[in-house]
Amino acid sequence: MDYNEVVTTRRSVHEYSDEDVSTETLEAVFRKATYAPSSFNLQPWEFLVVRDDDRLATLAEVANGQEHVEEASATVVVLGNLDPSAHADPVFDDWLRKGYIPDEDVKEQLLDTVEGMADQSAAERRVWTNRSTALAAQQFMTAAWSEGVATCPMEGFDADALVEAFDIDDGYEPVMLVTVGYPAEDAAEAERKYRRPVDEVVHYGTFEPVTGAEVDETAGESATAADD
Amino acid sequence: MDYNEVVTTRRSVHEYSDEDVSTETLEAVFRKATYAPSSFNLQPWEFLVVRDDDRLATLAEVANGQEHVEEASATVVVLGNLDPSAHADPVFDDWLRKGYIPDEDVKEQLLDTVEGMADQSAAERRVWTNRSTALAAQQFMTAAWSEGVATCPMEGFDADALVEAFDIDDGYEPVMLVTVGYPAEDAAEAERKYRRPVDEVVHYGTFEPVTGAEVDETAGESATAADD
Repeated sequence: MDYNEVVTTRRSVHEYSDEDVSTETLEAVFRKATYAPSSFNLQPWEFLVVRDDDRLATLAEVANGQEHVEEASATVVVLGNLDPSAHADPVFDDWLRKGYIPDEDVKEQLLDTVEGMADQSAAERRVWTNRSTALAAQQFMTAAWSEGVATCPMEGFDADALVEAFDIDDGYEPVMLVTVGYPAEDAAEAERKYRRPVDEVVHYGTFEPVTGAEVDETAGESATAADD
Repeated sequence: MDYNEVVTTRRSVHEYSDEDVSTETLEAVFRKATYAPSSFNLQPWEFLVVRDDDRLATLAEVANGQEHVEEASATVVVLGNLDPSAHADPVFDDWLRKGYIPDEDVKEQLLDTVEGMADQSAAERRVWTNRSTALAAQQFMTAAWSEGVATCPMEGFDADALVEAFDIDDGYEPVMLVTVGYPAEDAAEAERKYRRPVDEVVHYGTFEPVTGAEVDETAGESATAADD
């Protein structure tokens, strides 16, 4: 599918057909998700695929009973490793092998830098892993759509209950849930929801954001302008 | 450009040609970025485009002297609004208008929910805005590539110095910098860096991640398997 078609037609879909998304299709989509960039190429993302009916029911419960978690062919728990250094070694070996860094000394310096990141506060490491992992999550959703597979990202869930129910060790942060399935008839053709207009979110040179009050005043206009 | 071509050929590029990226091209790319999803469609993203040479020099300075910040046609400061409720009103008006919610009462309940999110701790709101904004940032980078424009995301910068130098008020979080420009000759054709293989990052049913020690043992193999 053409790139522009993917991003302009993609919608978050809550209603799915009964057709399962095959493991082969999922793998192809995950592969493309992993092509997202990450800082120092550290790739903190992990994906737990829940497809079994009982486990999906548990997951729906943790997600405030949202029905599409259960009705999807699969729901993916997107997890972020809280330790930036967890996969650093093969990453920097690869840089060495491909000539991105000249020698082992530079590799050691890079490893030291990443160890420094790993020594940051828990709060900073949460921010870091959410940010990096969200890049791959977005690519997962567009890659799925390019294969005719719809998704819906969700952050409304009880993270503690999820970690408990799915036995996720405390080195990982639940970043979001993404439901996955072929859309039910007409479900993929919903009218696009309002997007804040480009001239509201993009600032050239100096940052002068539109505040809430100003937004309210021009809401009707803006909504019309962005609805395309 | 075909979607698969975009994601399989995209590379983070540090070296740019002298050709400027036009405002028109940037606007088209930003428009596609805004089509990313966000929780409750709240769209906390803001983009500060720095193109003036003096300002780029200042930005490079806060980014630890990284040269590509200055050499790019533009560097975008991706910012996240820390207040989930900032743009909620037009978003829910739009839902009402398009029939996604039945009436004003439901709109008021949604506004209450979002006000509740806005009452969360500063730490939670940082996580929230980084996560949502990163989704749009990833779409910005792939949309740019589909137009022949290269990018490089960066999180190595002094956030306090950036906020000070660019007069960014404390309601916004600097999420990342993204350099933007047409690639210098051959710069876009670098060999893809190592990606953790799909069978390492995807888990079916139960979460049993490969730990650092195990990664080290199989690094050579994994690197080969993912280099495609």
